[in-house]
Amino acid sequence: MSFPISPEPASLLTRYQQIRQQTEKICAPLTPEDTVMQPMVDVSPPKWHLGHTTWFFETFILIPHVSGYQPFHPQYAFLFNSYYNSMGSRVARSDRGTLSRPPLADIYLYRKHVDEAMEKALASEQLLAEENIQAVMELGLQHEQQHQELLVTDIKYILSCNPLLPAYQAKNTFISGPVSEKQAQNEWSTVPAGMYTIGHSGDGFCFDNELQAHPVYLAEFQARRTLVTNEEYLAFIQAGGYSDFRYWLEEGWQLCQQEQWQAPLYWVKQDQDWWHFTLHGLEKVDLQAPVTHISFYEALAYANWSGHRLLTEFEWEALAQLHANPLPQGNFLESGVYQPIASEVPQDGQQVVQLLGNVWEWTYSGYFPYPGFVTAPGAIGEYNGKFMVNQLALRGGSCATPQSHIRPTYRNFFHADKRWQFTGIRLAKK
Amino acid sequence: MSFPISPEPASLLTRYQQIRQQTEKICAPLTPEDTVMQPMVDVSPPKWHLGHTTWFFETFILIPHVSGYQPFHPQYAFLFNSYYNSMGSRVARSDRGTLSRPPLADIYLYRKHVDEAMEKALASEQLLAEENIQAVMELGLQHEQQHQELLVTDIKYILSCNPLLPAYQAKNTFISGPVSEKQAQNEWSTVPAGMYTIGHSGDGFCFDNELQAHPVYLAEFQARRTLVTNEEYLAFIQAGGYSDFRYWLEEGWQLCQQEQWQAPLYWVKQDQDWWHFTLHGLEKVDLQAPVTHISFYEALAYANWSGHRLLTEFEWEALAQLHANPLPQGNFLESGVYQPIASEVPQDGQQVVQLLGNVWEWTYSGYFPYPGFVTAPGAIGEYNGKFMVNQLALRGGSCATPQSHIRPTYRNFFHADKRWQFTGIRLAKK
Amino acid sequence: MSFPISPEPASLLTRYQQIRQQTEKICAPLTPEDTVMQPMVDVSPPKWHLGHTTWFFETFILIPHVSGYQPFHPQYAFLFNSYYNSMGSRVARSDRGTLSRPPLADIYLYRKHVDEAMEKALASEQLLAEENIQAVMELGLQHEQQHQELLVTDIKYILSCNPLLPAYQAKNTFISGPVSEKQAQNEWSTVPAGMYTIGHSGDGFCFDNELQAHPVYLAEFQARRTLVTNEEYLAFIQAGGYSDFRYWLEEGWQLCQQEQWQAPLYWVKQDQDWWHFTLHGLEKVDLQAPVTHISFYEALAYANWSGHRLLTEFEWEALAQLHANPLPQGNFLESGVYQPIASEVPQDGQQVVQLLGNVWEWTYSGYFPYPGFVTAPGAIGEYNGKFMVNQLALRGGSCATPQSHIRPTYRNFFHADKRWQFTGIRLAKK
Amino acid sequence: MSFPISPEPASLLTRYQQIRQQTEKICAPLTPEDTVMQPMVDVSPPKWHLGHTTWFFETFILIPHVSGYQPFHPQYAFLFNSYYNSMGSRVARSDRGTLSRPPLADIYLYRKHVDEAMEKALASEQLLAEENIQAVMELGLQHEQQHQELLVTDIKYILSCNPLLPAYQAKNTFISGPVSEKQAQNEWSTVPAGMYTIGHSGDGFCFDNELQAHPVYLAEFQARRTLVTNEEYLAFIQAGGYSDFRYWLEEGWQLCQQEQWQAPLYWVKQDQDWWHFTLHGLEKVDLQAPVTHISFYEALAYANWSGHRLLTEFEWEALAQLHANPLPQGNFLESGVYQPIASEVPQDGQQVVQLLGNVWEWTYSGYFPYPGFVTAPGAIGEYNGKFMVNQLALRGGSCATPQSHIRPTYRNFFHADKRWQFTGIRLAKK
Repeated sequence: MSFPISPEPASLLTRYQQIRQQTEKICAPLTPEDTVMQPMVDVSPPKWHLGHTTWFFETFILIPHVSGYQPFHPQYAFLFNSYYNSMGSRVARSDRGTLSRPPLADIYLYRKHVDEAMEKALASEQLLAEENIQAVMELGLQHEQQHQELLVTDIKYILSCNPLLPAYQAKNTFISGPVSEKQAQNEWSTVPAGMYTIGHSGDGFCFDNELQAHPVYLAEFQARRTLVTNEEYLAFIQAGGYSDFRYWLEEGWQLCQQEQWQAPLYWVKQDQDWWHFTLHGLEKVDLQAPVTHISFYEALAYANWSGHRLLTEFEWEALAQLHANPLPQGNFLESGVYQPIASEVPQDGQQVVQLLGNVWEWTYSGYFPYPGFVTAPGAIGEYNGKFMVNQLALRGGSCATPQSHIRPTYRNFFHADKRWQFTGIRLAKK
Repeated sequence: MSFPISPEPASLLTRYQQIRQQTEKICAPLTPEDTVMQPMVDVSPPKWHLGHTTWFFETFILIPHVSGYQPFHPQYAFLFNSYYNSMGSRVARSDRGTLSRPPLADIYLYRKHVDEAMEKALASEQLLAEENIQAVMELGLQHEQQHQELLVTDIKYILSCNPLLPAYQAKNTFISGPVSEKQAQNEWSTVPAGMYTIGHSGDGFCFDNELQAHPVYLAEFQARRTLVTNEEYLAFIQAGGYSDFRYWLEEGWQLCQQEQWQAPLYWVKQDQDWWHFTLHGLEKVDLQAPVTHISFYEALAYANWSGHRLLTEFEWEALAQLHANPLPQGNFLESGVYQPIASEVPQDGQQVVQLLGNVWEWTYSGYFPYPGFVTAPGAIGEYNGKFMVNQLALRGGSCATPQSHIRPTYRNFFHADKRWQFTGIRLAKK
Repeated sequence: MSFPISPEPASLLTRYQQIRQQTEKICAPLTPEDTVMQPMVDVSPPKWHLGHTTWFFETFILIPHVSGYQPFHPQYAFLFNSYYNSMGSRVARSDRGTLSRPPLADIYLYRKHVDEAMEKALASEQLLAEENIQAVMELGLQHEQQHQELLVTDIKYILSCNPLLPAYQAKNTFISGPVSEKQAQNEWSTVPAGMYTIGHSGDGFCFDNELQAHPVYLAEFQARRTLVTNEEYLAFIQAGGYSDFRYWLEEGWQLCQQEQWQAPLYWVKQDQDWWHFTLHGLEKVDLQAPVTHISFYEALAYANWSGHRLLTEFEWEALAQLHANPLPQGNFLESGVYQPIASEVPQDGQQVVQLLGNVWEWTYSGYFPYPGFVTAPGAIGEYNGKFMVNQLALRGGSCATPQSHIRPTYRNFFHADKRWQFTGIRLAKK
Repeated sequence: MSFPISPEPASLLTRYQQIRQQTEKICAPLTPEDTVMQPMVDVSPPKWHLGHTTWFFETFILIPHVSGYQPFHPQYAFLFNSYYNSMGSRVARSDRGTLSRPPLADIYLYRKHVDEAMEKALASEQLLAEENIQAVMELGLQHEQQHQELLVTDIKYILSCNPLLPAYQAKNTFISGPVSEKQAQNEWSTVPAGMYTIGHSGDGFCFDNELQAHPVYLAEFQARRTLVTNEEYLAFIQAGGYSDFRYWLEEGWQLCQQEQWQAPLYWVKQDQDWWHFTLHGLEKVDLQAPVTHISFYEALAYANWSGHRLLTEFEWEALAQLHANPLPQGNFLESGVYQPIASEVPQDGQQVVQLLGNVWEWTYSGYFPYPGFVTAPGAIGEYNGKFMVNQLALRGGSCATPQSHIRPTYRNFFHADKRWQFTGIRLAKK
């Protein structure tokens, strides 16, 4: 197994419990009916997420490594496999919304059944001594954290389809510092030309797609210290950006016309004001907050219109190495805000803000293997490599990403047309 | 309003209560998640049926006729309108499966709110004295009975999509009389040539599509006294009926190949035996029971293969007038069996059995207006007339039809490819 | 074989030659590229029509009945079979537009090869003495006449798709008599109640779908003596008929919105005037001429809007029996006008005009089998019966129908959404 | 305008004439009907290619730069614009197959009209002295050469859809040298680690997507000296490569199953042998020739199965710089073979063969902008940049590429699923 092991094996049991509880906390405000919705094919029903993350531990830890473990139900392997061809047949992705049974209560029993077995196993020396077990455990935990992010974004999409526009939760008051008035004076940060080591090295956990660390030569460039705000994006809308083909990639332009895009996903114009649907219900758009729920096509059209460009994923990583050290605090899943927020920007220096958290930053890099990339043998090898075409790399995590899950070398990936994730824009020039 | 009034206005309150309770009884075994499923566009989520039937009374009785009535929720009119263009915009039919909210509990509160107002109104002389009110009430009750049938068939379809193949309820033991061994000696019943009055006349309720009663000349023909059984249909399957184009209409043959039909909907072959999914779970096919869940294309292909034909809807109604008098008891919704069953057949005489209940009988008649057909003004006029093209007439009701809802002049209609209703075959010749 | 034989067997050779030449005359103005176009699936490329009608004689006459006949090319049977499952595999209907080869010149050689063999065979006593041969010949000739009509309508559709809007031919001046100013005084013709014999009887040729002749009882009704004109239809357009759901069948209303129908096919509004594409190029709409290129949905919406209704096909046939005797002259294929035209209407009496020719009249009758209908065995049996569902009956022929091909019992059939044929409207009331 | 100018402006008139004649030579064997076919959306009708390449010179040279020039036809600008949004509305790409008119003869008149005007203009000093004119001319010539390649591949696809499998031309005998028996001993060529300058520099013409030349660091790797042959690919087929998901990207695997791919496009198995459709008709697969007509998904699956990988486009260009100097002769459009062929391989040394010509080599690099990429202003700027997403870079040209059109820095691009181009595989390792 190629995944490096996290440096803190002692905390495995604690981390397991915390992460598993976090998942259930996210689902607590949902009705049983909410948990079976699949209003578009990219969205998975929350009940499915609850079951699938559990299936991972049952399948890759309990069944192969804990003698005497009794699977909770003989058909759950079929119900909750996602895309692992190695693990046999499964419910088609587009049919996940047909699973009214097992009822939600049974899924929580399933979680309890697996959690009890896992806690017992993690308390024993024997399991932890097995070869690879810590790597698989780490992968299972990281995997569940990925699904926590998807839960937040899928729940948002599900509720947004409902004509009642229900709020997921009441608004969590979050005070961001005042935005500096001098921001404009000092908005670009320079990254000098040179060789950079891109990819993960060292002891901590990473996914296989972050390997191998390898040298990349970069020319000098400048990056915006802050994310593009709703106010800035609104100027693009008002300037007719959605109806001028010159800013768009051809496939984006076709889609924009076909789908009649006029603004980011979830935005609604009422009278003269723009509102957007949030997990707290319909709210006025906060002009100082970073724009989000835009496709790669929109991000690039915005960059073209503004006379700048997007970063490559290599530039992004170099930027994080140089100008975001120490990494700034961010707005993550744990804040419970579930919405990007404005940040205070230091008036002097070149420090870059909002690199981690808030929104995933679209890069103009395809999601492809690094030199020397090797997939792991068996089902675990289906985790990342087989998706390496037709997607763009995104960096930095979002307001729905667990803080302990993200790092500067982390590579996320989505198709250029996707908008239901918390995605945003950082600009570069020259 | 063109709908004749039922002769028993005194019982309106009682009937209202019984019918409303029956609807909730049908939904009692469902989980909340079951009630939001829409696995294909023809199926509506049970929660939607529960709300829509309630919306009917709120919209057409309480709001226009009961002063001071407070609608339960301002947006429910949008959520629960089905297809009445006159009543404004509504959730697209294909999007009914996105309604996780309002939660099921709220829908039951909605029903309670409307039921209390209705019961109060129906107890007053004043409401019943209003012009047309009894006709609208009657329509509302008949409408809810139609949705009871759809609830049963939609629930069956929903559960059938689930890999766990859950049973809706335990099997309701139902003893049918032994099937006569001499059945074959006497299987055809003759209807003589002559003028027949087709359509509804007299005092009882009918839908507008059963009017006007009008004379139709029919040549002599013979009709099978019983429905085609699973055993007979199995002979068609085994003779290669699903792979011989000669028996099929061209559009049916295209569909049969495209969908790879091999047997009725819900049938599964395991080893050498045929099983089918029922509301009691997966069961062996009962050879003596009437075949069901077949499209019009399959019904006609079977008739062609057997050397016979289907009846027209006029022939069916003449048959019911002459040879099914008094109308035989049938297998209706109230039996709780929810599956067609074999019937005892009198050995002498020409009495026809299974005319009402068990399965809707496909006729080879298009669903078109009778001479002099007039749609009612306003929203009620959208009930039937606007569907009069590209559908076939079906007669006789099924095991999911309430007994008090059906009559010999009743005209049901579905597209030729539909299979999720309890549909079956009666043969004719000459 | 169930098709009655035409009374004039002596003229078979002459009729064969005339009909075959007529087909080639229709195609004479086309470029080779025109003959391979298939801009929608309902349209067949003219080259395919030329080959397919020839294939019919080769397959059903020459190969089985003329010893020593050498087929022109071994693969043409595959290329030019239309829909006869009995005759083996064939090019999919939607792929007919891929046939650039064989080149047009080869198809004319094919026609010549078959014509020479046919002429030789028809000149011999031996062939004509064979059982059934005259019936098959008659069917082959009628079949080619049907394709002549399709050639005209398909050519019109093909040219209409071209941005250059090319004319098929220069305008053929056609002088219709002046339309009577008193037309309105006397516009309805009455058909009394009674039993009518519907269907074909007697010696002449008919298709199997016109049999058996059978009694039908009809109530009294009145029919318009003339077809609905463009001027009348324009009033419907101007009154908002295309945007008021109340006049439409539900499926028609959905389609009307989806396709954004605003007027008949081929109509274009330029400035304030309506023009339409004809085989003579773009012309101003002639207000006195019958409206054409409308779907059944539009025909019925117009009838509903005008407060009248459409005839059934039985009423139409009764009307033709009673009030169109002798049948009025019409505007047929032979006129070369290829466009419906205004007719002079006698001011007194009840004579009905435009019954035959000009436009096919949509009836509100499904295309279903007559009582006692039997399909012929073998491939010929696939001619009509297998299409008897989901289509409407049309009566009377059009300006693209050969005069010798039409008769009052003739049943044409199209789906309710089709507009590329010359279809029109006759109204009924009571 | 950012396109560098070709060093030989003196030859512009001669080159113009040669290139224009080459296009017509390619189309000479076609029937008029062949020239209007569009059997799939990626294919354009040959008549359209003939018109569109002419439109380019009329639009970008004659109309803006030659005073008094009369356009051939006012509507041709609409008919023959491809995708230049700046140049106004145009026939939708998927509707190019509806253009039976103007007839082929008119298109040749159009070419003659433009050629005469162009030849006159190119003979004058005045035109050549205008700013930018040589760059636009160069682009027009390169553009027509690109369409020559598309003509060959589109004609092949068009003819392959015809059930008669017609040959485009008789086989052009082409003797390749014998393939070395010792090939296996020496099949890999090494490229050392280091900084490479990628992209075009110097005087010759290049497209904007080859700019700016920039440094890229590459680790050491080895590349196969020859392309993967049909024999090698057949081993992959026989080993079950098309039915083992482990070798495939997920999107490729879905497509492979859905389209039921079993072999490259145009391959047919008859009895035990593999044949493929070529421009000379159906032929046995030549085992020594390079495999072609495969998608990127198949190329990568083959590489994974064989235990190797594909090159990146940067590696490919470095390989061409180091080990293919001087560039080997290749099999280009001018050979008239229109099919990849086997090559003689020097037994000693590391020389790489088949780098240019034969087949486009799929790289595992997305088609993205180079650092500093800038699109030209105006319509010319729509040439390349707007396609830079969701496509893979291909290198080296094919047997349908004109020899003077290709160079080592040339970047072609197609979606991962495309198979109708002459695409093939070169392997790399470590």
